[in-house]
Amino acid sequence: MEINLKENERIDDLEFKNLKIIQNKKNFCFGIDSILLSDFAKEIKSNSKVLDLGTGTGILGILLCGKTNLSKIIGIEIQKDMCDMAQRSIALNNLENRFEILNYDIRNIDFKLQMETFDYVVTNPPYKKIDTGIQNKEDSILIAKHEVKCNLEDIINKSFKMLKNNGTIYMVHRPDRLVDIFYLLRKYNLEPKQLRLVYSKTNEMPKLVLIKATKNSKPFLKVDKPLIIYNEDGNYTDEVLKIYNK
Amino acid sequence: MEINLKENERIDDLEFKNLKIIQNKKNFCFGIDSILLSDFAKEIKSNSKVLDLGTGTGILGILLCGKTNLSKIIGIEIQKDMCDMAQRSIALNNLENRFEILNYDIRNIDFKLQMETFDYVVTNPPYKKIDTGIQNKEDSILIAKHEVKCNLEDIINKSFKMLKNNGTIYMVHRPDRLVDIFYLLRKYNLEPKQLRLVYSKTNEMPKLVLIKATKNSKPFLKVDKPLIIYNEDGNYTDEVLKIYNK
Repeated sequence: MEINLKENERIDDLEFKNLKIIQNKKNFCFGIDSILLSDFAKEIKSNSKVLDLGTGTGILGILLCGKTNLSKIIGIEIQKDMCDMAQRSIALNNLENRFEILNYDIRNIDFKLQMETFDYVVTNPPYKKIDTGIQNKEDSILIAKHEVKCNLEDIINKSFKMLKNNGTIYMVHRPDRLVDIFYLLRKYNLEPKQLRLVYSKTNEMPKLVLIKATKNSKPFLKVDKPLIIYNEDGNYTDEVLKIYNK
Repeated sequence: MEINLKENERIDDLEFKNLKIIQNKKNFCFGIDSILLSDFAKEIKSNSKVLDLGTGTGILGILLCGKTNLSKIIGIEIQKDMCDMAQRSIALNNLENRFEILNYDIRNIDFKLQMETFDYVVTNPPYKKIDTGIQNKEDSILIAKHEVKCNLEDIINKSFKMLKNNGTIYMVHRPDRLVDIFYLLRKYNLEPKQLRLVYSKTNEMPKLVLIKATKNSKPFLKVDKPLIIYNEDGNYTDEVLKIYNK
């Protein structure tokens, strides 16, 4: 299939079930975060309906279409140019029947889509508060990385509204936000059920957290064994190679 | 010094600065939890005033007297026979001037001691909710392990009341309660600042969590590198040997 590429865009091979993605090298490009989240969420059941809050290039949805038998995923993204790029990646992968992009503000999503109709929410939200860190001047990257257009509480609040009873949210985030995440999930009756910490190496501080929470579930957190990215010798661990399908 | 031992009691050598402890082999005996917590809290400053909520045999306070230059630690314990045993261990170690035992109910502690006068709280509380797990018929062990006499919210609420502004609480607990802990700490303005997960081995689920929280502090959690107890060969890791002072 012929897909038009715009200035600074390139097609990257995801090396998984022949999936591909269009990215703009001047914008935010996906990292290991989305790969690990798609793997963490691979227990998503067949024929389920999934909502992706903050879709960006569409990487997470494309991977989930490959890894699971979900019937429908709707990706919400506020940036018009990102939506356009995600839309072309969906066409490139022939996923038009399963993956739909909606150029919309997450904060108003409950007025656009019917509430309590999703089995799952997946989200790789902006990690940084707007009052912390260096703010990138490229607007598109700023929006992807910082809580400019929506914050963690918006995402968790809307996830609760959109999920069916006992529906599940999968999230990737930074360890320094773990208190915010647990506090807000419980506040909105999305009980954290599983936590996995991601470390570059065994003897380092964790880089990422993977969290699963279930709507109106009873409290009991399962903390998984660590997910280690690199061996002592600097190569990927067997688990990460398997996630990358190598 | 001659110390009277009661039926089933024995003196254990802590193999650290010649410290000893009296324990009753039919009751709850200390484990690695207290050792690790005392090490996690060893940054307690000189001349500070410390409150130990749920002192039991006094193990945590005795270790902290050895590891830090705290000027005073008050241990609160609801069980009279445990208080008696702790008192004799304090005498055995000549710590009467620094470590005081109070046979009192944590839930009423703010009526007994002056509020906002402690620099630190340390606590190794009962881990299990009263509606979960097998309940040990030995009353003393039941009280030490289950939330019979006080629960996590009591402990966190009272810690907030007893700590000075910017005072710090150190806690050891089970990973499955991490959401409860973070939620309640933030609810009572004790902001979690540091988390360390304790694993038996690298590729297993964590057994314990060590948490530091500071009263009225800004949100930002530091998650430490994992604390691993055993090497692949089944021996203690270098870090644990160092904690044990070997």
